[in-house]
Parts: sequence; structure tokens; C-alpha cells
Amino acid sequence: MHTEPTTFSAESYFATQPPPPTLQHDVEKVREFVARQAKEGRNVVLVTSGGTTVPLELNVVRFLDNFSAGTRGATSAEYFLKAGYAVIFMHRQFSLQPFSRHYSHSTNPFLDFLDIDAPESDGATPRISVTPNKRQDLLEVLTVYKNVHALGTLHTLTFVTVNDYLWLLRAVSQEMSVLKRRAMFYLAAAVSDFFLPRQKMSEHKIQSGKGNLSIEMDQVPKILKPMVDEWTPGGYIVSFKLETDQHLLLPKARQAIERYGHQVVIGNDLHRRKFEVVFVSKKPSPALPPGLEQTKEVLEHVADAANSFDEYWLRIDLPEPPPPGAQVKEIEEDIVHELVKRHMEWIDNTL
Amino acid sequence: MHTEPTTFSAESYFATQPPPPTLQHDVEKVREFVARQAKEGRNVVLVTSGGTTVPLELNVVRFLDNFSAGTRGATSAEYFLKAGYAVIFMHRQFSLQPFSRHYSHSTNPFLDFLDIDAPESDGATPRISVTPNKRQDLLEVLTVYKNVHALGTLHTLTFVTVNDYLWLLRAVSQEMSVLKRRAMFYLAAAVSDFFLPRQKMSEHKIQSGKGNLSIEMDQVPKILKPMVDEWTPGGYIVSFKLETDQHLLLPKARQAIERYGHQVVIGNDLHRRKFEVVFVSKKPSPALPPGLEQTKEVLEHVADAANSFDEYWLRIDLPEPPPPGAQVKEIEEDIVHELVKRHMEWIDNTL
Repeated sequence: MHTEPTTFSAESYFATQPPPPTLQHDVEKVREFVARQAKEGRNVVLVTSGGTTVPLELNVVRFLDNFSAGTRGATSAEYFLKAGYAVIFMHRQFSLQPFSRHYSHSTNPFLDFLDIDAPESDGATPRISVTPNKRQDLLEVLTVYKNVHALGTLHTLTFVTVNDYLWLLRAVSQEMSVLKRRAMFYLAAAVSDFFLPRQKMSEHKIQSGKGNLSIEMDQVPKILKPMVDEWTPGGYIVSFKLETDQHLLLPKARQAIERYGHQVVIGNDLHRRKFEVVFVSKKPSPALPPGLEQTKEVLEHVADAANSFDEYWLRIDLPEPPPPGAQVKEIEEDIVHELVKRHMEWIDNTL
Repeated sequence: MHTEPTTFSAESYFATQPPPPTLQHDVEKVREFVARQAKEGRNVVLVTSGGTTVPLELNVVRFLDNFSAGTRGATSAEYFLKAGYAVIFMHRQFSLQPFSRHYSHSTNPFLDFLDIDAPESDGATPRISVTPNKRQDLLEVLTVYKNVHALGTLHTLTFVTVNDYLWLLRAVSQEMSVLKRRAMFYLAAAVSDFFLPRQKMSEHKIQSGKGNLSIEMDQVPKILKPMVDEWTPGGYIVSFKLETDQHLLLPKARQAIERYGHQVVIGNDLHRRKFEVVFVSKKPSPALPPGLEQTKEVLEHVADAANSFDEYWLRIDLPEPPPPGAQVKEIEEDIVHELVKRHMEWIDNTL
């Protein structure tokens, strides 16, 4: 599979890679959802969640994947819904989802808390009900879940491959551009930096008898730049940087803000992400007092400020080890709270 | 990451790659489970299920994976339990599991069929019960689930990486060897053919700024041979071959039987696997009529027969498209039925 690497711009990517077959259908549903939310006056956030795959074969048997259960996205979506946002939840198939995330089949299987009641009469199908000591927890989740469904404020979309993700992201952000500043983008999905262009993929399963496996991949185009400039100008865009080397966190986050010009990068370390994140954004240009003479010094000061970053660390205390069964504070509650505040300011700033 | 490929035997693999930290604990639980089942006179089947990952970094962000939701394994485990087997269900974390597999969070979310009843008195926590039209389906699943738990015939183990899988498989099959011919191995997991030795892994997330990604992987050692010869002699071993090219199915299955000397390969094509599989096994040596002169011709005939294969195609009719909501026949029911029959013969043949 040794072939020449190709460099893809967003434009050349979409010109050469095929769209997912369900794209048109998905886009129409999003359009309806956005129109209804706009009419009902809600802010809308796109939450992306889970990892993307890079198939190595056209008939997919093997793929490269990015580590992500989708906890950050699913949890945050719930808090956005509680804050009154309408949420487009665009997630990796089978990754965690808001509400049902509390009942993982592995750690909290729902079949374990269902009781078969004695039938009310002979031959009647017995009732099945939630066991008393699980009622209170489930009631809270279920009540919000039912409210969200009654209001119609959650729309779910799924992707599997990085190609699905890129096509969907472009289309959804274009659809959301009608919301202007009322649209937020919370890009929590763990997106592959690399992909295998369709033109280089092997049709069938790579056979193992032929020795060792060697894969060469191309870089995924950077899509934040066209997203900011073309697809959804005015949108409030939040991206994530996950690193395993603490020292790279701030430099990589600042670099992303500088390059793409979006609003916030949330930096998180793989091992500390449940209790510590950092919001990195551009410092607002200082307001010059009226009548101040624009000397060389003053202008340099303004330029410096424009190049400097605002860093806001958000930390919570997590009990270690967590008390069994107890409700543990989730950092996503504070992340969403902070972002909603910033988004309000962003909206107000143009009114 | 260009380095020299290494060829690993099972022995050199286990001598150089570190065991998962929970191995000892997992093995003790399996030992207790096997001892209890042996005492209670049950046959035991190890069902492996789901894909294995190959991490590319020590602090895992990226990994290679094999396509598998774990449907085959989870479904088959349910039918083995119904057939009276004790099941060790060794599956990829978050892959489908017996029973809960019917309630995928994406396609049949259980929160959708729970009703909040009116509270019985003011201030009381309301009851939550299963909505009437979902009761019958759930009742069937829940009844078997509760029986299995009451009998203690299901033991669950999880793996993530191909390294976890290999260490667990060796240890579990060694523990099961005390069962001799009463042990069955149903190896439905989609195991990577390639891996990245610990010694070649990068510590931190591979940075994308440095150009294209190139990965070279080594071949995973073939473990069926030592499994048959050393780890669990006497066990009835069933492996799976998944191919996307129909023409490779029989040759690859025959080759596996020939090389490893186990009992059955179940071959399946990626696109036909829900309604068609083929059981490939060695033809039993023909019994020669007593007193037959062992001429050259007779001996050649015996040798030919020993080199020939028994191929048994199992097909079911699936309605296309499946009627919504209807219970659809699952091919795993017939696969398990056929294997239980063969396993009984295998056990009887040595009594």
C-alpha cells in the first residue's frame, strides 16, 4: 500500500471523496429541525461526539479509530438541553447518548432493575416495573427525557467514518448558518487526523498471509478555517484539544485559535479530563480611551493584546475513589454553564 | 515508525508482551465458575465476541480495530444458555451482550418504553412501569435473563486490546482444560491479524503536524495450534472465518482446519452472514471392514479421505425487508443447535 501522499484542502477533499448515501435525507431533517427551533426562538447547539473511523478496505473489516466512548459529548448535550438549548447531537454510531448514557449495558444494565410483578389475574401478562430502590434515580433522568421529547428539542444524527463526519459537519453547519450568532458548535468528537482516500483503498479484506501490515495515510484537511470563514459565519465555535503530554496542551490550543480564528479551544489532558479543562480564547482588543493619541507604543500594545490569549482553568473536586452509587458532580455541567454565559455575550455584542 | 518486522511464535509473544493487569483476578473468577459448573455437571462453552483493538500509542488515543458489533457472539451465547450450557462470555468492552442486545440504545432505547405512573399518594415516588405493548417481548427476555442469573450459568469477561484477548484466551482455555471434552470453544471474536509490539509503541499521541501517518505492524501469532495441542487438549474448538471475497471462504476455512487441527471452522461472508454460513470440518477416517487387505489402493483411499473435508451449508430464509417489529429467525439458533449435536457426539466418542 505504499503510494505517494496527497495534500488535501477542504475543497479538494469534498471534490474527490464521495458523500455518504444518507446525506441528503439527513440534511433535510436538520433543515426542518433548525427552522422549527428558529421559529420557537431557541438557540441551537451542534454537539459532535465519539470517535471517527478510517476504513482500510472498501468492504470494511479493519479500520483505524480514535479513542472515545462519547462521554463528554453525551453528558454536555444533556446540560445544554437543561439550559434551554435545542441540540443537534451528531454522534458516532453506538457511542453514548444523552440520558441512556446513565444505563450502560456493562456497568448499570437496565434489565437488572426490572421486576416481574405477580399477574393481576390468571392468564394476564404480568406487569414489569422498576425496582423501588432504583426509582428515584431513574425518575429524574426519565422526566427530563420525556420533557425533551415532548418539546422536540433533541435531534440525533449518526456517523461512523471520518468521511461521514466531514460531509455531515459541512452540511449541518451550512444549515445552521441561518441562525447566525444564535448557533453554537461544540465539537467534542475525536476526529481522526489521518484518512485513506477512497482511491487508495483495497476492495477486499487485506490478507494476513502476505507478511506484515503497512499503512500510509493522508492528512485530513483542516475544516475549522472554512467553517469559520464560509460555512457558518457568525456561529460560536468551540473545539477540543485532547493531549496526553501536558506540556503540549496550551501551545497546541493557542496554535489552533491563531490558525482558525474560532472562539474557544477547550484543552484537556487524557488522564485529567474528568476534573480539569482549560478554555483558551483570544483576548478581546483593548478599548482605547477616546482621544488617546495613537503613538507607536499604543499601537504596539494593541497588537500585543490582540496576539495574547485568555486562559481560563476550570477544575472540580472529584472524590477519590467515588462513593459507590452516589451522584458524582460532572465537569460538563460547569463547561456548559461557562459556554452558555459566553454565548449570551457573543449574541448580545452584535445586537 | 519504520522498523524491522519481527515474527512472533505464541511462545515468544507471551515472553515479550506484558499481561493485562487484571489477568490474575479474572483467572481466579473463571476457575471458581468452571469448578462450580463441573460439580453441577454442565458443559461449558467459552464464547468470544466483538473486535480487538491494536493501540498505536501507549497512552491510547488511536488504535486499529476490527469491525464487529458482537451480534454473532451475544446471540449465540443466549442460545447456548437456552440449551443448558454454562457460558463464559468473553467480549470486547461495550460490544453487544446476551439479553441486553435486544435493547440497543440506538434502535430500541429502553427509556422509550417506560411510563411514569401517577403516584399512589401525595409525595410518594411514582412507580415506573413498562408500557403495555412492550410487556410481552420484554417478559420473554427478562424471564430467561433472571433464570440464568438465578442458576449462575453466565460469567462475563471483557477485553479491549488484542493483547488482552490473547492473554485471556490462553488462561481461560487452560482453566477449562479440567473439563476435558465437556469444554467447547466458540471463537467468534474478530481478532486482529496484526499488532504493534509494546517495544515499538510511541508513548504519546502521534502528532499530525509531521506529515502523513505510516504504520508498520507485525503479525499476531497463530494461537489455535497451541490451543489444540497444549492449552486445552480434548476441548471442542470452533473458529470463524469472515471473508468479503466469497471465493476465498472454503479454501481459507480448509486451510485453517488443516493447519491447526481443531474441530470446526464456520465460514461466513460479510454480506451473507445473517442467513448463510458453512461448517467445514475434517471427514472422519473411514472405518475399514475388518479383514480387508491393506493394499496400496486401500491405503491411498484412506489417506484421501483423511485429507478431505466435510462441508455443511446452513441457510435460513430471511424476509426481505424484515416485517417491522416482528420477531425474526436468527441463524445463531441453528448454528448452536448443530454444534450442540456435534459436541454431544464428540463427548460420546470417548466414553
